[in-house]
Amino acid sequence: MKTILIVGIGTGNPEHLTVQAINALNRADRLFIPDKGAGKADLADLRRDIVARYVTNPASRMVTYGVPRRDAANPDYSAGVDDWHAALAAIFRGLLDQVPDNGAGAFLVWGDPGLYDSTIRIVERLSADHTIEIIPGISAIQALTAAHGIALNRIGQPVHITTGRKLGPVTDDTVVMLDGQAAFLHADPDLDIFWGAYLGTPDQITIAGRLGDVRDEIVTTRKAAREQHGWIMDTYLLRKRG
Amino acid sequence: MKTILIVGIGTGNPEHLTVQAINALNRADRLFIPDKGAGKADLADLRRDIVARYVTNPASRMVTYGVPRRDAANPDYSAGVDDWHAALAAIFRGLLDQVPDNGAGAFLVWGDPGLYDSTIRIVERLSADHTIEIIPGISAIQALTAAHGIALNRIGQPVHITTGRKLGPVTDDTVVMLDGQAAFLHADPDLDIFWGAYLGTPDQITIAGRLGDVRDEIVTTRKAAREQHGWIMDTYLLRKRG
Repeated sequence: MKTILIVGIGTGNPEHLTVQAINALNRADRLFIPDKGAGKADLADLRRDIVARYVTNPASRMVTYGVPRRDAANPDYSAGVDDWHAALAAIFRGLLDQVPDNGAGAFLVWGDPGLYDSTIRIVERLSADHTIEIIPGISAIQALTAAHGIALNRIGQPVHITTGRKLGPVTDDTVVMLDGQAAFLHADPDLDIFWGAYLGTPDQITIAGRLGDVRDEIVTTRKAAREQHGWIMDTYLLRKRG
Repeated sequence: MKTILIVGIGTGNPEHLTVQAINALNRADRLFIPDKGAGKADLADLRRDIVARYVTNPASRMVTYGVPRRDAANPDYSAGVDDWHAALAAIFRGLLDQVPDNGAGAFLVWGDPGLYDSTIRIVERLSADHTIEIIPGISAIQALTAAHGIALNRIGQPVHITTGRKLGPVTDDTVVMLDGQAAFLHADPDLDIFWGAYLGTPDQITIAGRLGDVRDEIVTTRKAAREQHGWIMDTYLLRKRG
């Protein structure tokens, strides 16, 4: 019996780590570090920095693994994701083989493991003779609202969380995640937008205002930042003016 | 110039505290502890426990303040909330008077300050010559999904967050917060429910299953727990069967 720890590490600020996450990392015999290629090397470095800063267990070892790319050209989005998860599950099986019997292995998950992350689902594909523990972490949504100094919801009102792909007309306050296509360009210009990238890190950028007034600035900023860093993670809230 | 720290402390597990939150509490000259009356004394105790466990700054002092009750009998919900926030703002002004010049005062907020909490809005009512910093914390939603071992969203799908008062027909996966009226009793019995109370604490209770099969158990469990503890905080996810 082995334990799989799925540990939320927050959005890039090492101080986002909870005491529960630090304790979980210290219980792990193996710490799994994804390597998403040269363009995202600073993401792997950030996980290594977190391990160096907080892990004092002398028995723990880091294990780096390559992450295959999802076939974004597959016209069937679900089938493309399914193939990608199957490939990752095969890799995860190999990682768990390196965990000693009755030991624990930890996945360090960006943000919160429950929010637009596939680690839980991939681990569920593995055989059932593992104990799974999930440790929540600060999500990009929380880092976004904290950076803008705002509450996510308005008093007693609902909030919608969606993806760039699924963004439709905005009625409720809406958070958009995973938006590679700048879906905000097609939203009502009279909405307010609260946008943020690299939230929680020293490179954090925030822009807020009437969408029609700031969307060009967001597009330009986003493009320049992606070129500079080689990657970008951004998210935003759209809200009808009050 | 004084600094107001609005610090998310998670949902009752002292290990939900982030390193950022611990550092913020240690920067505060005054730590404000709400007292919601005898029935909720363990909530004030939990904040004191967190301070005792993590605060090492010898200059810091705890200041306990009474929290007035919102007039739930006011038929105008918005006006009732507005009156309540105005009363709290007057109390907050008194608390900030106790912070030394150029010092900092910290509010310890259950969960995440951005999610169904009024502290940010009340602080915004105060005069503008304060610096406000918001420190995100683990929310009840994250504690719920971690406890059930599930992701909040399904692959590429949206999530809706709403209140018991606003719960309508469920199409997207829906989280219900602040539900004093057991709104799930009126939802489609063929939905799955993932319910949790006292999430993250040693008293945590979770129930999951087809709503029609488990709703009576939830009602009974909820009533007994509320009588035992004198208060309850619970939340749940409603999801169409996959």
